[in-house]
Amino acid sequence: MTTSAPVLPPVDFTARLAGRAQRMTASAIREILKITQEPDVISFAGGLPAPELFPLEDVRRATDTVLTRYGPAALQYSTTEGHLPLREWIAARAGITPAHVQIVTGSQQGLDLLGKILIDEGDVVLVEAPTYLGALQSFQPYGPRYVELPTDEHGIDTDALEEVLQSQPAKLLYAVPNFQNPTGRTLSLERRRRLLELTAQYGVLVLEDDPYGKLRFTGEDLPSLYELGLERAGGDPERSHVIYSSSFSKTLVPGLRDAWVQAARPLIEKLVQAKQGADLHTPTLNQMIVAELVQDVLPRQIETVKRAYGERARDMVARIQEHFPPEVSFTTPEGGMFLWVTVPEGLDTVPLLAQAVARKVAFVPGSPFYALGGGANTMRLSYSSATPEQIGTGIRALGETIRAAMD
Amino acid sequence: MTTSAPVLPPVDFTARLAGRAQRMTASAIREILKITQEPDVISFAGGLPAPELFPLEDVRRATDTVLTRYGPAALQYSTTEGHLPLREWIAARAGITPAHVQIVTGSQQGLDLLGKILIDEGDVVLVEAPTYLGALQSFQPYGPRYVELPTDEHGIDTDALEEVLQSQPAKLLYAVPNFQNPTGRTLSLERRRRLLELTAQYGVLVLEDDPYGKLRFTGEDLPSLYELGLERAGGDPERSHVIYSSSFSKTLVPGLRDAWVQAARPLIEKLVQAKQGADLHTPTLNQMIVAELVQDVLPRQIETVKRAYGERARDMVARIQEHFPPEVSFTTPEGGMFLWVTVPEGLDTVPLLAQAVARKVAFVPGSPFYALGGGANTMRLSYSSATPEQIGTGIRALGETIRAAMD
Repeated sequence: MTTSAPVLPPVDFTARLAGRAQRMTASAIREILKITQEPDVISFAGGLPAPELFPLEDVRRATDTVLTRYGPAALQYSTTEGHLPLREWIAARAGITPAHVQIVTGSQQGLDLLGKILIDEGDVVLVEAPTYLGALQSFQPYGPRYVELPTDEHGIDTDALEEVLQSQPAKLLYAVPNFQNPTGRTLSLERRRRLLELTAQYGVLVLEDDPYGKLRFTGEDLPSLYELGLERAGGDPERSHVIYSSSFSKTLVPGLRDAWVQAARPLIEKLVQAKQGADLHTPTLNQMIVAELVQDVLPRQIETVKRAYGERARDMVARIQEHFPPEVSFTTPEGGMFLWVTVPEGLDTVPLLAQAVARKVAFVPGSPFYALGGGANTMRLSYSSATPEQIGTGIRALGETIRAAMD
Repeated sequence: MTTSAPVLPPVDFTARLAGRAQRMTASAIREILKITQEPDVISFAGGLPAPELFPLEDVRRATDTVLTRYGPAALQYSTTEGHLPLREWIAARAGITPAHVQIVTGSQQGLDLLGKILIDEGDVVLVEAPTYLGALQSFQPYGPRYVELPTDEHGIDTDALEEVLQSQPAKLLYAVPNFQNPTGRTLSLERRRRLLELTAQYGVLVLEDDPYGKLRFTGEDLPSLYELGLERAGGDPERSHVIYSSSFSKTLVPGLRDAWVQAARPLIEKLVQAKQGADLHTPTLNQMIVAELVQDVLPRQIETVKRAYGERARDMVARIQEHFPPEVSFTTPEGGMFLWVTVPEGLDTVPLLAQAVARKVAFVPGSPFYALGGGANTMRLSYSSATPEQIGTGIRALGETIRAAMD
C-alpha cells in the first residue's frame, strides 16, 4: 500500500516495554542450538525425545476415535481446569481428586503460572545448582531472588539447605528430583525426607518438577516428593506443601503440549484463574487424544522409551570412559535424558563448544544452568535422540576436543 | 498411604500468594455460565461458535494428511515463533513478513503476553466502555490503571479519546473495532483514522483485537487499524504503532487454540522470549492442521459461518422488535456473534438474570464488561449458537422478564 502521508519515524518500542520485559532474555540454549543445527554436526545439545519412538499410528487412531466419539465438542472451547477424564486418570494414580489437578499447556506453562501466582518481586526462590534453565526463564519475569543450593551425586545437599533456611526466609524451593535436567542426578530417599521436613518446618513451598520420573532404566523407583508429602500429611492433599508438575512430553509426545500440576485446592483455584487469563484452556482435542492413549499406549510407550534411553545412556557412558581423558568426570544417570560432564578447572566449555563444532559435535555449556553463574567447566550431554553411530563418533570427537583444549 | 507421623496443620496457601495473584479473580461470565447451564434453559449467555458448523471431517482429514506428511515432526517440539508455513500464510495476507508474526495458543495468550511485556504496574491502559472482559482478565495481573473511553453506535468516541490523551500519558489503547465483544458495534472508518492519528501523536501503542473481522454478514468491510497503520507507515511494519491480534477460533474452530499476533519486530522478538517462558510453543500438530486448512477450508467455512450468523442475528433482532418493550434499545450488528441490549435506567440486569433463568432463558449482565463498573442496565446476547426455535422462545421469555421487571 502507498500513501501520500509522510513516512513516520520508527516507534521506540523498547522504551515502551514493561520492567519485567527487560528481565526476559532469549534462552541461551535456544541460541546455542541455532549454531549447532548444521546437518553434519552430531548434536548432544538438544533435549529432544527420540522422534522415531513416537507412537504416530496410535496418535492417528486416537484422533480419529476422539473426533468420532466427541464430535464437534472435540474442537469446541472447553473448561479451564482441563478434560475431566484426563484429570480423573491423573488423580486416581496420585491418590487425590480431580480438584487437585490442573491441566496445562506443557509443563512450562505450569511453571510460568506458578511463578505468576506465587512470586513477588524479591521473593527468595531456592534452586539447585545447576537447575533447569526453563524454570529460571519462567520465573524470571516475576522478579525472584534466586538462592542456589549446592548439589552432589545424591542431589541437593540438605545440610546446606538447612543453613540457607536458617539465614533467610524463602517462598519456594524448586527442584527436579529425578534424573535432573541438566545433571541426570537423582535425589536420594533420605534427602527427600529431610528436604520435606526442613521446608515444612520453615514454611517453604516445594515445587517438584518431574518430567522424567517414569523413565528410570536402572535402579529402584523412589517415591516422589509429592507422594512423601502426601504421606506426611496423612493423605490429605490440602495439608501438603508440595506442588507437583509433570508432563506427557517425555513419556508420550511433546508436540501436543499436555502436562499437569497437582497441588492443594487453594493453589489450583488460583491457577485456574491465572490460566483463564493466560490461554483460557489447553487445546481440547489434544487433551482428548492423550486421555485416549493413557490406558494402553502410555505404559507400552514408557517401556519402549526406557529401554531405548537406557541403551543409549549405557552406550554414551561406555564411550566416554573409552575416549575422554581421565581428568574428566561425569554422571551416570539411572533414567531420563541427560548426563553431566565436568572438565578440569580452568577449561571453559563456551569456547570449547566452538572447537567441538569444528570437529562436528555439539553439547550445551553448563553455565546457563546456574542461576547465579559459575559452572564454566561443565557441560550437558543428551543421549535421548542419538544413534549408536552418532554416540560413537560424537563422543570420540568430543574427547579429542577436550584433550586438545587440555594440552 | 498411612503414616505414624502426626497430622500436620493445613498450609496457609493464601498467605503465600504473590500480590498479582490477589488481583486475579474468577471470570464473572464463567461463574454466570455455571448457573445458566441447566439443560432446559435457553442460553444467549455463552459466546460459543456454532459447533454444528465445525468442519469436523476436514479436521480429521487434515490431521491424517499432516501426520503422514510430517511424520514424528508433527508431534515433536517445535519453534517458539510457530509453524513457518502458517506464519507465511498470515504474513502474505497482511503484506508483512513472517518475522512480524507470532503464533500464540489462542488470542487470549496473545493478550496475556502483550500485557506481560508492555504493562508496568500503574500504566494507563485505555479500554472501550464496555470492553472485552477476557482482555481485562489478561492484563489485570500486571497492574494496569484502566481509563475508559466512551463509545456510541460508531464505536470509540474519538473526541473523548483526545481529551483523555491530553490529560494523562497512556501506554496502550486496547480496542475491538469489528463487531465488538460485547456490543456488536463497529468502529467507523473516519474514527479509525482519527484514533490512529491521535494515538500516534501521543505515543500510545494500539492493540487491535480482531477475532470477528472476517465474519461480516452485512455492510462493507472496513480496513483494520493494522492495515491503516501500515498504510500510514508507508508499508513499513517497523514504523507502525498498531499491534494486531486475531485467531482461527471464530472462523475455523476454537478447540485447537491457534491464534496470532502481528507487530513490529522488536515487539515480536520480546513476545518470543515471553512465550518461551510461558509455554515454549503452541502445539505443533494443531498449527500444522490449521495450516492445512487455511487454503481451501477456511474461506468456505467463513462463508458458512457468516451466512448462519447473519440469519441468526436478523432473526434475533426481529424477535426483539416483536417481544421487547419499546423502552429497550439494542444494537444491530453487521457481523460477529453478539448484540447489546440496554433496558431502562433503574433496572439492574444482575437480579434480572435470576428472573430470566426462572423463565428458562439466560444472558450475560453487562456490568462485568466495564473496567470501572457501571452498565447495570445492559446485557449481552449471543446468537451464534442458537436455533430459530431457541431464539423465538428465548427472546419472548426475555421480553416477558423485562416487562415484568419494568412493572
